[in-house]
Amino acid sequence: MARPVIALLTDFGLRDHYVAAMKAVALGIAPDVTFVDISHDIDAHDVLAGALELDACYRDFPAGTIFLAVIDPGVGSSRRAIALDTGTYRFVGPDNGVFARIAEASAPTRIVELTEPRYARAAVSRTFEGRDRFAPAAAWLATGVDVAAFGPLLTAICPLEIPEPRVEDDAIVGEVLRVDRFGNLVTNIDRLSVERIPRGRVETDRHAIGMVTATYADVPSGALCAIIGGSGHLEIAINGGRAADVLGLCRGGIVRVRRGA
Amino acid sequence: MARPVIALLTDFGLRDHYVAAMKAVALGIAPDVTFVDISHDIDAHDVLAGALELDACYRDFPAGTIFLAVIDPGVGSSRRAIALDTGTYRFVGPDNGVFARIAEASAPTRIVELTEPRYARAAVSRTFEGRDRFAPAAAWLATGVDVAAFGPLLTAICPLEIPEPRVEDDAIVGEVLRVDRFGNLVTNIDRLSVERIPRGRVETDRHAIGMVTATYADVPSGALCAIIGGSGHLEIAINGGRAADVLGLCRGGIVRVRRGA
Amino acid sequence: MARPVIALLTDFGLRDHYVAAMKAVALGIAPDVTFVDISHDIDAHDVLAGALELDACYRDFPAGTIFLAVIDPGVGSSRRAIALDTGTYRFVGPDNGVFARIAEASAPTRIVELTEPRYARAAVSRTFEGRDRFAPAAAWLATGVDVAAFGPLLTAICPLEIPEPRVEDDAIVGEVLRVDRFGNLVTNIDRLSVERIPRGRVETDRHAIGMVTATYADVPSGALCAIIGGSGHLEIAINGGRAADVLGLCRGGIVRVRRGA
Repeated sequence: MARPVIALLTDFGLRDHYVAAMKAVALGIAPDVTFVDISHDIDAHDVLAGALELDACYRDFPAGTIFLAVIDPGVGSSRRAIALDTGTYRFVGPDNGVFARIAEASAPTRIVELTEPRYARAAVSRTFEGRDRFAPAAAWLATGVDVAAFGPLLTAICPLEIPEPRVEDDAIVGEVLRVDRFGNLVTNIDRLSVERIPRGRVETDRHAIGMVTATYADVPSGALCAIIGGSGHLEIAINGGRAADVLGLCRGGIVRVRRGA
Repeated sequence: MARPVIALLTDFGLRDHYVAAMKAVALGIAPDVTFVDISHDIDAHDVLAGALELDACYRDFPAGTIFLAVIDPGVGSSRRAIALDTGTYRFVGPDNGVFARIAEASAPTRIVELTEPRYARAAVSRTFEGRDRFAPAAAWLATGVDVAAFGPLLTAICPLEIPEPRVEDDAIVGEVLRVDRFGNLVTNIDRLSVERIPRGRVETDRHAIGMVTATYADVPSGALCAIIGGSGHLEIAINGGRAADVLGLCRGGIVRVRRGA
Repeated sequence: MARPVIALLTDFGLRDHYVAAMKAVALGIAPDVTFVDISHDIDAHDVLAGALELDACYRDFPAGTIFLAVIDPGVGSSRRAIALDTGTYRFVGPDNGVFARIAEASAPTRIVELTEPRYARAAVSRTFEGRDRFAPAAAWLATGVDVAAFGPLLTAICPLEIPEPRVEDDAIVGEVLRVDRFGNLVTNIDRLSVERIPRGRVETDRHAIGMVTATYADVPSGALCAIIGGSGHLEIAINGGRAADVLGLCRGGIVRVRRGA
């Protein structure tokens, strides 16, 4: 039988021992798990950025994967600890919006509050629930415990405000949601929206990028291009360069696709 | 049977191939190990920082875990290479103090010098013993070789000077030992010491923090707080912010708990 | 039977989800693989740096290891996707020179172009072949598929210009190929070349370093030294310090070994 996969996403960084402590506790419960680190370099407390990274890759994981996502500005407070089961995947973390998009996309999803003490450590730190509550829960799920055993069913979870593109007469107006390591500007405009604009031309407030091309190499080295990136969203990039630096754009920067002449 | 766990702690960083070389060699000897990275971003040669990160998390690992800790400013010199067996855990690395606290806390501990050539690579680089001596030793331990087979028993290891808090009449005076990714200031004052000060109030040379609260969210957003962190030590933090930046404190900064009125 | 090892080398960084997406896809095909990260912090598009890191460590891995190396400035273009089988190891990635040195060193090596669609994802993104073409290929190799099944045999691959040292009458003139985390300057001069220069003395344009010593600790703390590093090449270092900063040298800086008096 395949070893269960736990995929981790946090804002803990890799310098401190915090991620290791979570894995250590999980291995004590589920010794045969395989860990995959999605990212631990989400900006501190940036729930939206975490939600977007998770959303961009969770479908690439094998069915049965358990996602342990701990970006938790409200650790130790009354915010709930939850687990979701979409039928294909399970998710464990704080109820602060990080799973909002997944719950929408995957309904019907069972959601529970993590209240059952036997699936947490005996003493739960009020400042490190990642180690004492979430990691054990993920590990118990990996051993085969059903999500319903962790606590009462919930009918709704905390929403998350994700900026949505605005549709105008002859254009769609979106914005940059993240800047990746290559300086690519990833927007909230998806492939379908782009395809609805005839002969669409991509632009920012100060630069005309042009039509969407299939890949970076379709423009000369050093030139700006607009592509549909690996997660299916419009990106502005530079072949061999850093669009974010050249355009001076970051998260929130406006990007338009306008009907061509 | 559970797969053996090797937990790694180095100052090698993740940019160079050095950590991978250690894992590669270990996998050649013990193909079914699970690796957990504690940290590879310890400042170069900072044995104290490494010892503190290790001490903060090793008890979270399952019994049987092997810790491979290579912060080794004296690589290739006459400093000894050692392994410790506490009965629960085993540790491999240079004898430079990184294991001093563990040896104290876990007595009786068997300690050996790594001299047996069959458990090192055939040619040991004088500049990369992590790959050629320590990683093989950890892997052989993982396959079940007893620590006594690696070389002669030692009765003492290199000590480590860890700053200890000073107890005064109505106060305990400690210091910041590390600053974490969130800008939290983790001190050397443990929970018991705090509890011995009636109505204790936490302060730095220039700021009054107040009484210890249970978690960040017990103070308003942006406010300073004093908490007992996940490793059981007093921390100064800001709910949603970075105490280190706001207070201008780093390692060595003085923190007091003073008897309240 | 030992679990197959996939060793990863990219310029993707660890902040974005890109490395995780590759592992996710691979686990869906080969659930029992062990991943080892060589580095994901190669500078963006720096094929030479990637080739050097790979070359410095691949021999440390157990036989059968599959290397997935994706530094791919030409992603989506007509550059070929390839796999190599040296008999001992297999390599998967773009044909841009990253494997040139390995193909030379390991002949006879079978090389194929990755054209067989059944070993890629159904839809291959033109901007993320790491996830859609290379990761699946590595995973299928891990399940036991022979390299010949992936596509037509190639007789030559893209070369890579690696700066080679120049031999003069009484000296060998090389250069710095990489600066590691410790500020050590790793050159392209190998141990044999050094040994051919009688009483050789190492120097840069502005500093005399002296004879090669066995390890850092052979010189006083803070002193410059020349050593043969863990990968068998001449390095300039400072015992307990950062040679790169003190000498003001980086990649391309000239290093000479001159016959002594």
